[in-house]
Amino acid sequence: MEKYIHGGRVYDSTGKAENFLDFSANINPLGMPAVVRETILKNIDGIVNYPDADAGELTAAIFRKYDIRRENLILLNGAAEFFYLYLNTIRPKKVLIPEPAFSEYERAANAAGCEVKFFFTRPEENFRLDVDEIIRCVKSENIDCVIVGRPNNPTGAIISPNDVKKIGEVTKILIDESFVDFIEKNSVRNLISENISVVQSLTKIFAIPGLRLGFAAAEKKLAEKLNFGKDVWNVNFLSQKAGVAALDDEKFLKETRARIKSERKIFVERLKKIPGVKYFDAPANFILLKFDSIEIAEKILDEMRRKKILLRNCANFPGLDGSYLRSAIRLNEENKILLDRLEKILKTKN
Amino acid sequence: MEKYIHGGRVYDSTGKAENFLDFSANINPLGMPAVVRETILKNIDGIVNYPDADAGELTAAIFRKYDIRRENLILLNGAAEFFYLYLNTIRPKKVLIPEPAFSEYERAANAAGCEVKFFFTRPEENFRLDVDEIIRCVKSENIDCVIVGRPNNPTGAIISPNDVKKIGEVTKILIDESFVDFIEKNSVRNLISENISVVQSLTKIFAIPGLRLGFAAAEKKLAEKLNFGKDVWNVNFLSQKAGVAALDDEKFLKETRARIKSERKIFVERLKKIPGVKYFDAPANFILLKFDSIEIAEKILDEMRRKKILLRNCANFPGLDGSYLRSAIRLNEENKILLDRLEKILKTKN
Repeated sequence: MEKYIHGGRVYDSTGKAENFLDFSANINPLGMPAVVRETILKNIDGIVNYPDADAGELTAAIFRKYDIRRENLILLNGAAEFFYLYLNTIRPKKVLIPEPAFSEYERAANAAGCEVKFFFTRPEENFRLDVDEIIRCVKSENIDCVIVGRPNNPTGAIISPNDVKKIGEVTKILIDESFVDFIEKNSVRNLISENISVVQSLTKIFAIPGLRLGFAAAEKKLAEKLNFGKDVWNVNFLSQKAGVAALDDEKFLKETRARIKSERKIFVERLKKIPGVKYFDAPANFILLKFDSIEIAEKILDEMRRKKILLRNCANFPGLDGSYLRSAIRLNEENKILLDRLEKILKTKN
Repeated sequence: MEKYIHGGRVYDSTGKAENFLDFSANINPLGMPAVVRETILKNIDGIVNYPDADAGELTAAIFRKYDIRRENLILLNGAAEFFYLYLNTIRPKKVLIPEPAFSEYERAANAAGCEVKFFFTRPEENFRLDVDEIIRCVKSENIDCVIVGRPNNPTGAIISPNDVKKIGEVTKILIDESFVDFIEKNSVRNLISENISVVQSLTKIFAIPGLRLGFAAAEKKLAEKLNFGKDVWNVNFLSQKAGVAALDDEKFLKETRARIKSERKIFVERLKKIPGVKYFDAPANFILLKFDSIEIAEKILDEMRRKKILLRNCANFPGLDGSYLRSAIRLNEENKILLDRLEKILKTKN
């Protein structure tokens, strides 16, 4: 498996989209808010102008929703853009990545010429991050920068605000909260400091990954440098408009959180009854599954794919192997299709 | 005037778009091809998936149109993204920028930590680039990299393929051909080598700057590094679809070139008869104007703005001052509105 291949690959080799039931990308199963679709339709002719370089409306909407001031805000063409921008801007010598983690952290660190050090969290500890171990590693290895997902992808593990602070006392830390809006946990955005920055995707929660949208919050001086490190039009006009509409739709976020919570509970209860699959419980909109062997997991991937169902092969996550698969939590009927089929495949195997 | 402010600022301070006749941004006055608008409308629901990370359809369309192979291609969220990507990837120590030029060259070089050296082309020489002088400067100043627009914005000057080659023999050169499709000149894309790279915008020619789209062509190994220096989803799904539709619309490009050529001729003939304005003749879709004083040029800007007409103040281009304004070439009726008003203002002044 190629090193940096991601989930959500619904296109064939010619670029034609196929009709998959996609559990391989962690996108809001409710789809995009109706108001976003309307807003895009209404604003199509606006693409003949440059996007607003100051992003006045979007900046105001993010302030209303997340209480981030313009001076701390970096608007993004999707959260993934930030790893490259951040690392090219601060240029750390040595980056620590607790693994398994989203592979763009490592890819961006390599691209920016950083040395990368892995720290392996353990399945037997539910992939929990031991902050004292991390701090010891930071000191002994002369680490400049740590990157942590919160919740972490693909494990779902959640670093506490207090642990973020502790790491921020000894080195720079970038927290990736791309999935935080799916769950009932507070963000650590309020902790931003010289050392602590936070990035967040808006494309997953609002189901607009094809349009790209994200933002980061950083201490004022760093934010200024980060904004200077990219062109001012990186967030396209339709994303700006869609973002404003989506962020002002309070009901949608509440409904999403409630649905993910209840669907996840049903998903897990059902999983418990299926033999041959372990799972790592965590309050995220995705779940990490472990099978008895790589062969079984690959068989599952193949058979699902034949039925137009996509799961995420975790073979290319450092610290995992092909016996792990990641699944998004989707809506009840969709999850049922997945789990019925999973049960059938596993029963045939055993 | 702020250092890096660009044209095309049609938004008020709250981010609301105003209805300007915009000569300050150099966008195709024909607007976006009808097929692009249709394609976007048809594909809106596709934004719930990630963009095709391999950009299969767009890569094929660019090959058909520009004969650039996948191994040489870098797809961009607008051409401006490339200056940051390129400079962060090759990290030159000292960048030479022949001025006046598009300010993103300098901004990106500063952001990437490069030392920036200006080389001033001269109005009395029609801002022509003297390649021998450039090469002498490259050698004496230990320049790592030169960035040149072709045609150059805002002067319209065009460096010859032979001069590009000559500079490429002594240092890295990035040619910005963002406006080359507007004119009847061949691209220098065929010259790409270890030292010569070419970037091109697709948002100006297809009038979709709000959607963002561009590409660069580079030697294979460099292209690989450049592609590794950004995330794989930087070109959004709608841009990919719009790009394919636009590139396959041969008629649109031909019509654009013919219109720009004829409108430009009429524009210039009329300009010649207006006292108090000089112009720099060059085959671009924009034209650099020079007035007798900064005061007069500012008066023109203000009075035009009051009539909802935007021109580009050139005060922040190194090598120019506020007595220069840049105007896009638009359609006959639009140009007539601009020139009638210009004549009126200048006649009142004199």
